[in-house]
Amino acid sequence: MRSAGTVFSLRWQPCRTFSRVIPCKLGAVTTRTLIKNLAAASDGETSVSGWVDTVRDQKKVQFVVLRDESGAVQLVHPRSFNEDGTPAEDPLAEIISGLAQGTFLTASGELKHDERVKLGGVEIKLAAIEIAAEAIPETPIAEDTSVDKRMDWRFLDLRVPRNNLIFRIQTTLEHAWRTYWVENDFIEVHTPKLMASASESKAELFEVDYFDTKAYLAQSPQFFKQMAQSAGFGKIFEIAPSFRADPSFTSRHATEFTMVDSEISWISSHEDVMNLHEELMVAGFQAVKDKHGDEIEKLFGIEMTVPTRPFPRIPLAEAKQIVSDRGYTVPRADADMDPEGERQIAAYVKETFDHDFVFLTDYAASIRPFYHMRHADDAGLTNSYDLVFNGVEISTGAQREHRVDVLEAQIRDKGMDPEELDFYLDFFRYGVPPHGGFGMGLGRVLMLLLGLPNLREATYLFRGPTRLTP
Amino acid sequence: MRSAGTVFSLRWQPCRTFSRVIPCKLGAVTTRTLIKNLAAASDGETSVSGWVDTVRDQKKVQFVVLRDESGAVQLVHPRSFNEDGTPAEDPLAEIISGLAQGTFLTASGELKHDERVKLGGVEIKLAAIEIAAEAIPETPIAEDTSVDKRMDWRFLDLRVPRNNLIFRIQTTLEHAWRTYWVENDFIEVHTPKLMASASESKAELFEVDYFDTKAYLAQSPQFFKQMAQSAGFGKIFEIAPSFRADPSFTSRHATEFTMVDSEISWISSHEDVMNLHEELMVAGFQAVKDKHGDEIEKLFGIEMTVPTRPFPRIPLAEAKQIVSDRGYTVPRADADMDPEGERQIAAYVKETFDHDFVFLTDYAASIRPFYHMRHADDAGLTNSYDLVFNGVEISTGAQREHRVDVLEAQIRDKGMDPEELDFYLDFFRYGVPPHGGFGMGLGRVLMLLLGLPNLREATYLFRGPTRLTP
Repeated sequence: MRSAGTVFSLRWQPCRTFSRVIPCKLGAVTTRTLIKNLAAASDGETSVSGWVDTVRDQKKVQFVVLRDESGAVQLVHPRSFNEDGTPAEDPLAEIISGLAQGTFLTASGELKHDERVKLGGVEIKLAAIEIAAEAIPETPIAEDTSVDKRMDWRFLDLRVPRNNLIFRIQTTLEHAWRTYWVENDFIEVHTPKLMASASESKAELFEVDYFDTKAYLAQSPQFFKQMAQSAGFGKIFEIAPSFRADPSFTSRHATEFTMVDSEISWISSHEDVMNLHEELMVAGFQAVKDKHGDEIEKLFGIEMTVPTRPFPRIPLAEAKQIVSDRGYTVPRADADMDPEGERQIAAYVKETFDHDFVFLTDYAASIRPFYHMRHADDAGLTNSYDLVFNGVEISTGAQREHRVDVLEAQIRDKGMDPEELDFYLDFFRYGVPPHGGFGMGLGRVLMLLLGLPNLREATYLFRGPTRLTP
Repeated sequence: MRSAGTVFSLRWQPCRTFSRVIPCKLGAVTTRTLIKNLAAASDGETSVSGWVDTVRDQKKVQFVVLRDESGAVQLVHPRSFNEDGTPAEDPLAEIISGLAQGTFLTASGELKHDERVKLGGVEIKLAAIEIAAEAIPETPIAEDTSVDKRMDWRFLDLRVPRNNLIFRIQTTLEHAWRTYWVENDFIEVHTPKLMASASESKAELFEVDYFDTKAYLAQSPQFFKQMAQSAGFGKIFEIAPSFRADPSFTSRHATEFTMVDSEISWISSHEDVMNLHEELMVAGFQAVKDKHGDEIEKLFGIEMTVPTRPFPRIPLAEAKQIVSDRGYTVPRADADMDPEGERQIAAYVKETFDHDFVFLTDYAASIRPFYHMRHADDAGLTNSYDLVFNGVEISTGAQREHRVDVLEAQIRDKGMDPEELDFYLDFFRYGVPPHGGFGMGLGRVLMLLLGLPNLREATYLFRGPTRLTP
């Protein structure tokens, strides 16, 4: 392998040769031309930087498809010949012949618009190639490689335009949500992930050696979101990692995942939370459709739709009856739904209301955490919901119980000891407004939006019971 | 204590009484009036919700200062008297007399503008009070309580307007940064916090029981930010928790803290990273000044300034000379600066250039991590910088070494084993563009911007060697 240093040279001129404190360069951070901007550029000298996608090394002419994060372009180099027709000395041709897929380089040459070029209607006639870093010629994964092996080589897997698009969509989605929150005076919080006790359940808890004691990784920001209400923050949001020591290997579970959380004060019921939730989903999906709708159709074959409000709402007991009427009996002893039941109710909602979302509401208190508020007229039911999107649960929301005496009773009711939750109960003893919120799995939203087969594809670097690398 | 339930009643009407799937309420998520909007509202019926700040229970009239996340307003209730001058029956007066500080309630009555009222020029003549949750009358902390005890009662501490403002500023700052990134086509990543090995140093590493093996908490997203460059993401950002098992108790260290990270491809040197960094700081500070400048002046006595570009840059060796010329010799055997040295160089920069920021550049390779690129003409120095703000280091940035053979040599040079970093080296073996970036402590920026005495004040819930609660 040729050392990259022989071709790539550091172009930086140290500032201290000019002046001690004034920078030698200002303005745009970097000056390279993105490939997506070539079509709108004029013919003439240009330079692009990216990695080698393919090389077609023909007798008379060489083609390189170069890719960057914005697109791909064809580089072309007609070989040189002597007058007698024998190959002439051609150092550029030799470099091109030696290019491995994945090699990063800067190509300069002449941009030409030519509508016969299928790839974007432009090509660059090469003048020079500056190699930044050569790749090992062998590529360990291909399109049909198993998902587990692709995850071993995730950095190569993410070079595939379809996979890159997932994370550009994620960026747009999150920014639309945050913009909604910020424009509506929500405060962003960063709640601690190291805790002295469990936040959800003592099962599925990761234990950390913490100096002379033990800490636990936060399973959700639940307690700290609620603390913000007692602190008078009013409305808050957080997008952050959560951790569950869940040994399951389903397509929709991970040990570490990104949670989207929001919590608001002075609600009348979980209806207010669902309204917030709807507004966020509409704002996010509208932004994704506007920015990426065409690409999503091209790379995923999905016509992106923005959900209409209101989203259908069905009390869980009725949803189970509807599913049962369709011939599926949920095989559970408790009052809960199961994944097939969620698919069935989603199919019913799609057929009946042409909607991809459904709120299942009023879950039984027996299958909800102690902090969900119960109905005023029926303590067996809670002011809570799950949001189902394309047949899979993506979120749980609820009004929280804010009356400390009722809350303590509900803790006991679950067989838990209020003493252990004393620090949490303090939030309520010193005053707290009625409040509620939801937590939503970011990866699940992306998975279901794009029809991905599992959460791994929607996660930058997946973590599961047997997956801690790369 | 009266049960809150006797006064507060759940106002929600269950949707299922109207229709199975159509919500009973739409539109704005909640309808309460924020206190900050009262001044612009017309006189007449109004209702506000918040917590009791103070009660002045006088013979003829009662005053309550009610606070919400947006401000404070005076509620007034003239007591009733019989014709003979004796106190008349007055249930509202009794409720007011019993109000504890921190009790959350909804107050309705008549809004009146009156310029004699110092608090915002308005007051509400009370008609009714609806208590949401009563507070315990004893308040465990006061303004002069020690910081450690205030942290025990952080949810009460955060009710103080000054402390609330810190997190509204944080929200604005982060949103301005993210808006800059998104508008410049950066991709947001969520890198894993559970790792199979150390990301920075084997010291200060938290160990996690991970099923049948061990995992470690990420000390920084360093490796995964760089992976994004090999994956062709081009430009990325992340704001997320980092963890350091650092046993120190200084004012500027925490075991868990929020890191602001960005990494970009195709840079020429760390100058490009510093340019990006400057643009972000200017965008963030401008947004904070625009939105909170007046409040910052009022509550912190600080006139917010937006830094001018370029920020001064001083090579570290020269900075040490300047500091030495000022009479302070850095008491370190290695080439590094110390906190007092940082304060001294910041003072020099303030005096000489009237600037609050300074980039210290070109750190010696001996005191930088293996992944910093070294100077092309002097392997003893790196293409790196620290950003110092108001005398304290808030960030480290660098161009990364992307040439795998050089990188392996630098790993060995640090006495480390390249075998252990094999998964990381793979990112480079399969091609990577020249790249660089920075990591910055969010809490430090806020601490220094607002002149706070320590990181605890700038952190929602601080985590230190002996602090895991609340």
